[in-house]
Amino acid sequence: MGPAEIVSGFIAAIERRDVAAAVAMVSDDVSYENMPIDPIVGPTAVARTLEGFLAPASEVEWLVLRQVESGNLVINERLDRFRIGDGWLELPVAGFFEINDGKISRWRDYFDMGTYAEQLRGLTASD
Amino acid sequence: MGPAEIVSGFIAAIERRDVAAAVAMVSDDVSYENMPIDPIVGPTAVARTLEGFLAPASEVEWLVLRQVESGNLVINERLDRFRIGDGWLELPVAGFFEINDGKISRWRDYFDMGTYAEQLRGLTASD
Repeated sequence: MGPAEIVSGFIAAIERRDVAAAVAMVSDDVSYENMPIDPIVGPTAVARTLEGFLAPASEVEWLVLRQVESGNLVINERLDRFRIGDGWLELPVAGFFEINDGKISRWRDYFDMGTYAEQLRGLTASD
Repeated sequence: MGPAEIVSGFIAAIERRDVAAAVAMVSDDVSYENMPIDPIVGPTAVARTLEGFLAPASEVEWLVLRQVESGNLVINERLDRFRIGDGWLELPVAGFFEINDGKISRWRDYFDMGTYAEQLRGLTASD
């Protein structure tokens, strides 16, 4: 599998909320960098973080609006969607994935934390 | 000039705080999309927005950490730095630029507004 296919498989696993399958595609020294917060290092910490993101969602869709491969780098623009209660949280994201030896070794996501937090509050407040 | 050179020239103009030179490089129907907020359309509105960003800064450095060209698309990861008073505001940004007929017709920046606003508050509060 080439870098773009690995990233597509990774995103498909997240959409299935299959954290084990997703984490099987990252390297032992993976660094997962949500730019507003500190890097998350290693598969166990990545799994924990993904579980946290996915926990409130009954359905997950990460729409890849555009994807570019350049050497071992895959860049995409996404709309990450999480069905929470009766609504969808929608987060625009720019993702940068570095692939080494067939595994994702760095995953950097740029997004606006306020856009995420505000929608999460709105969707969970209605419970 | 190819797409990557146009983007580099655009960023160099911003670093010189030469808004007129920067805006000469965008198309009449340019859409400037800071993802946390509504799109800004047209050169006049782009100029006004850039002037707003640049006004508090005595020095501007946009460090391009990585840049990829793919067709008419240029993607970069940047650290946008603004010297304000005694300190530097530093904002990680992912930028997507579409070039048509030698002009920037779409400019989309992904970043965390809270990271920007918090530093701006801190640096201007010391006045």
